[in-house]
Amino acid sequence: MISDKMSGLVKNSSVIRAMFEEGKRLAGIYGAENVFDFSLGNPSVEPPVKIKEALLQILNEESPNLVHGYMNNSGYEDVRAAIAESINHNFGTLFHGENIIMTVGAAGGLNVILKTLLNPGDEVVVFAPFFGEYRNYVSNFDGQLIAVSPNTIDFQPNLVEFEHKLSPKTKAVIINTPNNPTGVVYSEKTIKELALILDKKQKEFRTSIYLISDEPYRELVYDGVEVPYLTKYYDNTIVGYSFSKSLSLPGERIGYLVIPSEVDDFEQMIQAANVANRILGYVNAPSLIQRAVAKCIDAKVDVEIYNRNRELLYNNLLEYGYECVKPQGAFYLFVKALEEDDKAFAGRAKEHNLLIVPGSAFGCPGYCRIVYCVDYNMIERSLPKFKKLAQEYGL
Amino acid sequence: MISDKMSGLVKNSSVIRAMFEEGKRLAGIYGAENVFDFSLGNPSVEPPVKIKEALLQILNEESPNLVHGYMNNSGYEDVRAAIAESINHNFGTLFHGENIIMTVGAAGGLNVILKTLLNPGDEVVVFAPFFGEYRNYVSNFDGQLIAVSPNTIDFQPNLVEFEHKLSPKTKAVIINTPNNPTGVVYSEKTIKELALILDKKQKEFRTSIYLISDEPYRELVYDGVEVPYLTKYYDNTIVGYSFSKSLSLPGERIGYLVIPSEVDDFEQMIQAANVANRILGYVNAPSLIQRAVAKCIDAKVDVEIYNRNRELLYNNLLEYGYECVKPQGAFYLFVKALEEDDKAFAGRAKEHNLLIVPGSAFGCPGYCRIVYCVDYNMIERSLPKFKKLAQEYGL
Repeated sequence: MISDKMSGLVKNSSVIRAMFEEGKRLAGIYGAENVFDFSLGNPSVEPPVKIKEALLQILNEESPNLVHGYMNNSGYEDVRAAIAESINHNFGTLFHGENIIMTVGAAGGLNVILKTLLNPGDEVVVFAPFFGEYRNYVSNFDGQLIAVSPNTIDFQPNLVEFEHKLSPKTKAVIINTPNNPTGVVYSEKTIKELALILDKKQKEFRTSIYLISDEPYRELVYDGVEVPYLTKYYDNTIVGYSFSKSLSLPGERIGYLVIPSEVDDFEQMIQAANVANRILGYVNAPSLIQRAVAKCIDAKVDVEIYNRNRELLYNNLLEYGYECVKPQGAFYLFVKALEEDDKAFAGRAKEHNLLIVPGSAFGCPGYCRIVYCVDYNMIERSLPKFKKLAQEYGL
Repeated sequence: MISDKMSGLVKNSSVIRAMFEEGKRLAGIYGAENVFDFSLGNPSVEPPVKIKEALLQILNEESPNLVHGYMNNSGYEDVRAAIAESINHNFGTLFHGENIIMTVGAAGGLNVILKTLLNPGDEVVVFAPFFGEYRNYVSNFDGQLIAVSPNTIDFQPNLVEFEHKLSPKTKAVIINTPNNPTGVVYSEKTIKELALILDKKQKEFRTSIYLISDEPYRELVYDGVEVPYLTKYYDNTIVGYSFSKSLSLPGERIGYLVIPSEVDDFEQMIQAANVANRILGYVNAPSLIQRAVAKCIDAKVDVEIYNRNRELLYNNLLEYGYECVKPQGAFYLFVKALEEDDKAFAGRAKEHNLLIVPGSAFGCPGYCRIVYCVDYNMIERSLPKFKKLAQEYGL
């Protein structure tokens, strides 16, 4: 009795979530300490203490009707202004509160902007490997997802193929840097080339092509790498941000969109996004946590904890013979599967109670994603298993 | 550059929200105390103290990674179990945690269930007057909204016309009791007749017709009136609940769906709703507030405050010559406009700084909605204005 679309989706229901459930099952059999769940990006580092302090302060000092009540669908004005100011301070931009729309996480933000933009059949270009949910978000509005094949040398986007895949039907391009699942940060050179191509194609097709930058991992970077702020390179850029990872608040569903005043059709766009936020059923981003993040805007989790995990896992996997680009951000490693079929490889890993996600889920077969936002100790305990797995493949 | 659908929506952007903005504008000119904004259902009664206590206790005693982290897309298992138990205790039902899906408010819940059910072109029947957003929620999934015309005698649904409007394409029926905008509670007699008609038509068409009960106002009732629990009358019932009004938390976006085990295709439905919750971009209902409402499950705001407002406004309007059915629940009065054109009447009211919403926004022209979840003092100050308005029409 359910809809045809949902019927298909239930069948292919998220591989990642299925893993999560599988992990719980295996833990029941073998004991939690003997199952190594590297499947779900659920931050393991605690939120900064400032978050708790901010929440307590708001609850104790502000009016409950303000803290828990309706506000403009786009969010509290003071919160939006504080966020604009912080971005300006960090990146030298010139945003105002009116450029910010508070959203139910980055997932909510992406859905808001795709609803705002897409007519049925419009094309949205993504670079493989990409977060699998993009497929569903685009499908929610009957858009068509066009995937550019991966560049497995360094996982920077394949811009030659990109240029060929743009068409008069291209309405948007989604990029995600630092990237899930590779941990790669797109370089400034990449961004500049990407912007040039988009500008050229906009002129050629006489259309607007919006670049949507999905940035939940912006603050999680290592070795001092810089993540370019996209609005500075291409006018038609819209940023989708989330505090899920930077403040370890994924369950709270809090993020924002930046819609710069320079984007084509700005006035219409900002109104439409406001309406989309409402009618998609979000209504507004959750209120108390909106107020809390505004007080912690430049706080972030202790990235060094993830960095230690990264070094431990990356160095050891390399030693065992695995191939992998060293991630510069986020908390994912994207290793080459030790056989052609990544699903079969993930299956073999599971026999060692290692739960990793096949790259096919990200449009990039032949690889697997290993999440390292987990306990350092779990990584340590898992290493002999990774070693044994490699040995089974003759490494 | 925005989508055609959004382009139309921006033009017709919510009358109610526009009023809200207009109220702020007028307050700037005449002073807040001289503007009488009866347009937005933003609860004026404070949340129960228990909510603050619960939030503080959770923040001080529970693990931050649990409190702010991801959980199953359908919500925390202990929260879902607590809600099922409370419903069972209050209404003699037999739900388990697995029948409950935590949602981003009732608006989120309705979108989840409509995405789960609707193929393009499927019909969703509503009874006028109805909450205008239903039109958008149904349109999100390319369904067709079929409105049954109002019964202006007592605003119980018009079941004769209802029966004729059901068709093999009817996938769902939405009812909302206590009702926005009339405040009317559908009687048990009405519910029984409605259920009989649905059962008959399901057999006749050999289809499943789901009754979606949108219940944000369930706890706000006066004079001891009973609100029948719909799942007890019709097997294919799905309940959408929100804590926005019962606990005065509308900004927090917290509610739930009840999908009883007896609904047709239960297993598929529950999985699909879980996936829909994820891919619509909600991911999960906000985490901290999920845990808080579970601790306050049987708390509610002081309804007597709304009751005083209701009596003051209703009795005086009647005295001035207005016609109105006395509301039994929610915090709305639905008065007959004093001229045929409800928009013109609302315009005349605005000349007295009285902001009320034309019934056309609810599919019921000729009436206007007055919200009384406002300060008692504001109602008192507004009464001379309502009186003068009536006098202008010769009453």
